[in-house]
Amino acid sequence: MNSSAASEPALPQFADIEAAAARLRGHAVATPLLESPALNARLGGRLLLKAECLQRTGSFKFRGAYNALSQLAPEARRAGVVAYSSGNHAQGVAAAAQLLGMPATIVMPRDAPAIKVASTRFYGAEIVFYDRYTEEREAIAGRIAEERGAALLPPYDHAGVIAGQGTVGLELATQADALDARLDAVVVPCSGGGLVGGIALALAGASPGTQIYAAEPEGLDDLRRSLAAGARVGNDPASRSICDGLLAPMPGVLPFEIARRYLAGSLAVTDDEVMRAMAAAFAAFKLVAEPSGAAALAAILAGRLAAHGRTVAAVLSGGNVDGAAFAVALGRA
Amino acid sequence: MNSSAASEPALPQFADIEAAAARLRGHAVATPLLESPALNARLGGRLLLKAECLQRTGSFKFRGAYNALSQLAPEARRAGVVAYSSGNHAQGVAAAAQLLGMPATIVMPRDAPAIKVASTRFYGAEIVFYDRYTEEREAIAGRIAEERGAALLPPYDHAGVIAGQGTVGLELATQADALDARLDAVVVPCSGGGLVGGIALALAGASPGTQIYAAEPEGLDDLRRSLAAGARVGNDPASRSICDGLLAPMPGVLPFEIARRYLAGSLAVTDDEVMRAMAAAFAAFKLVAEPSGAAALAAILAGRLAAHGRTVAAVLSGGNVDGAAFAVALGRA
Repeated sequence: MNSSAASEPALPQFADIEAAAARLRGHAVATPLLESPALNARLGGRLLLKAECLQRTGSFKFRGAYNALSQLAPEARRAGVVAYSSGNHAQGVAAAAQLLGMPATIVMPRDAPAIKVASTRFYGAEIVFYDRYTEEREAIAGRIAEERGAALLPPYDHAGVIAGQGTVGLELATQADALDARLDAVVVPCSGGGLVGGIALALAGASPGTQIYAAEPEGLDDLRRSLAAGARVGNDPASRSICDGLLAPMPGVLPFEIARRYLAGSLAVTDDEVMRAMAAAFAAFKLVAEPSGAAALAAILAGRLAAHGRTVAAVLSGGNVDGAAFAVALGRA
Repeated sequence: MNSSAASEPALPQFADIEAAAARLRGHAVATPLLESPALNARLGGRLLLKAECLQRTGSFKFRGAYNALSQLAPEARRAGVVAYSSGNHAQGVAAAAQLLGMPATIVMPRDAPAIKVASTRFYGAEIVFYDRYTEEREAIAGRIAEERGAALLPPYDHAGVIAGQGTVGLELATQADALDARLDAVVVPCSGGGLVGGIALALAGASPGTQIYAAEPEGLDDLRRSLAAGARVGNDPASRSICDGLLAPMPGVLPFEIARRYLAGSLAVTDDEVMRAMAAAFAAFKLVAEPSGAAALAAILAGRLAAHGRTVAAVLSGGNVDGAAFAVALGRA
C-alpha cells in the first residue's frame, strides 16, 4: 500500500492497527464511548468521550507498550525493556512487561506525580530518576539499554507503539457506529504524537471524512507550529504546563509524518481550560481526568473547535492525577 | 414459576429482568466491569467493580424508571409521572420521562445535593421541595399524582423498577464470564432495596451459587436488622450518614421479600469507610463515586466481607456528588 521512498520513514499501516487490536484482545480494556445530554445541550451538538482513563494502568499507554513488546522474540524478552517517560508510558511499559514476564527499567523525571511513580513501582519496574530540565532522558535510557542488552521502547517514535495506540481509533469508530453517530471530528491530546498519529491512521481507514485534531498545551504547541512550518520545530524549554504528560520537546519523526498527511490541525489550550475540562469530566461523565488527559475535551468545551450542529469526539487519554491536584481543578470550575 | 399465596406480594421473575434488558437496549449504557491490579494485590483476591456511575443520569436509577415508564399505555404516559427521591431516582425518572415524552414532577428533599437538583431540572422535570425530617414525601407525591391523574412511580417498591435495576445483575454475570471470573459474592449499596433485590433475582438465575450482600450505612442498617428480626424494621429518624441516597426509612415490601429469600446478609459501613472507598475509586479506577455509590466498595475494602482468595464484585451505583464533598473525601484517604 505505502510504497515510500527510501528517505521516508515507514509508517504503520491500517493492517498493523488491526493486528494490534487482535494482540490486545483480552489484555486491554475496550473502554466505553460516553455521552452527556447536559454537555450536548451546552454545545448545541453531540459530544462523545472515549474514556481511556479506564484503560489498564489508567491511560492509553498500555496499548502501544503491549503491542510492541508482545512482538519481541523470547530471547529479547528475557533481556528486558528500558523506557523513559513522564509517567504514563512508564506504567504502560511496566504493566505490559510484567504480563509478558520481562524485566523493565524506567527512566522517570524526579518531579513526576507521586501516583505515577508508585504505580510504575507496583508493576515491578526498576525506576531511575533524572532531572527534567537539565538531563537528557533519551541518553540515560540508551546507556542503560546498551549496558543490559535490553530493548529501548520509545514513547511515541515507534511503529509498534503507534499501531497499538491506534486501536483507540478502531474502537472509537465501531462504538460511534453503534450509537448511530457520524463523526465530524475527533480531538486527541498530543505530546510526541503517538496517540493522535495512531488514531489518525485508524480513522483514515475506518472513518474516512472524519477530521482529526491534536490538542496541545498553550506554549507547548510544537505540533501546531511544526504543521505551520512544514517541518518539526521544538518548544521553548522554559515553557510550563499543568499537563505533565504533554511536555515532549518536539513532535516525533513518525508522528509528524502522519500528522502532516492526516491531521486537520492542532488546537492549543490553557491550563485554566484544562482544569475546567477536568471539572466537566467529573460532573458530566463521572470520570477522573488527569490534566493531560483532559486537553482534547478542553479544546472542545473552550470552543476551539466548532461543535454546534456537529458530532465531535474527544479522547480522555488518562486519569493518573494526585487527589490534591484534582481537588484544585474542581475548585476552579 | 412463582405460585405465591394470595398474601404474598408478587415478586418480579427472571424473565421480567430479561424483558427489562430488552427494553433498555440502546437507551441505557452497558456499563463496564472494571478491575484494578493494585486493589487485587491489596485484597489478595479479585475485585470487580460494576461502574454504574457511568449510567445515563449518573446512577443505576435510570434503568428501573425507564423499564417501568416504558410499559405505560399512551394515555397514561400523557398524564405524566410523579416521583419522590433524594436525587438519583429523581434524575432517572426525569430522564426516562423526557425520552418517553412524558411530563414529570419530582418531590425532592430541600437538602438534596445541588448537582442532583440541577440535573433533575435539566431533564425537564418540575421540582417540588419538602423537608426530609418533618414532612412525608410519599403523602406529598401521592396528593400531586391524584390531583393530576398521573402515575406515581415509587423508588423501589415496584416490580417494574426492581426488574429494571436487575439488569445490572444480568450484565454483571455476562461480563464476569467474559473475564473468566466465577463470582463468589456481589455487594450492592442498599437503601430501600430495589437495586440489591433486582440484582439478587438476576443472579439467582444467571449466576446461582454467588452470594449477594447489601451494604448499608452504619446506624441506617434497617435491612440488616430486618433480616435478623424476620420482619421489616425501620431506622432511627435521628440517624445521619453522608450517604444521602441510602436514607430510606425501612426496606421496601417487595425488596424485603426478595432479600429474605435470596440475600446472604447486609454489611454496615461507616462514613469514614465510605470516604476511603471514594478515594480508592478515584485512584484505582478513575471513577467518581458519590458516597452512597461507594458503600459496597467500602464494605469490601474495610474487610467486612472476606475477599482473600476469592472473586468478589461491588456495584458502584452512582457518581452524583458535588465537587466540594468529593474533595473532602479525597483529603481523608
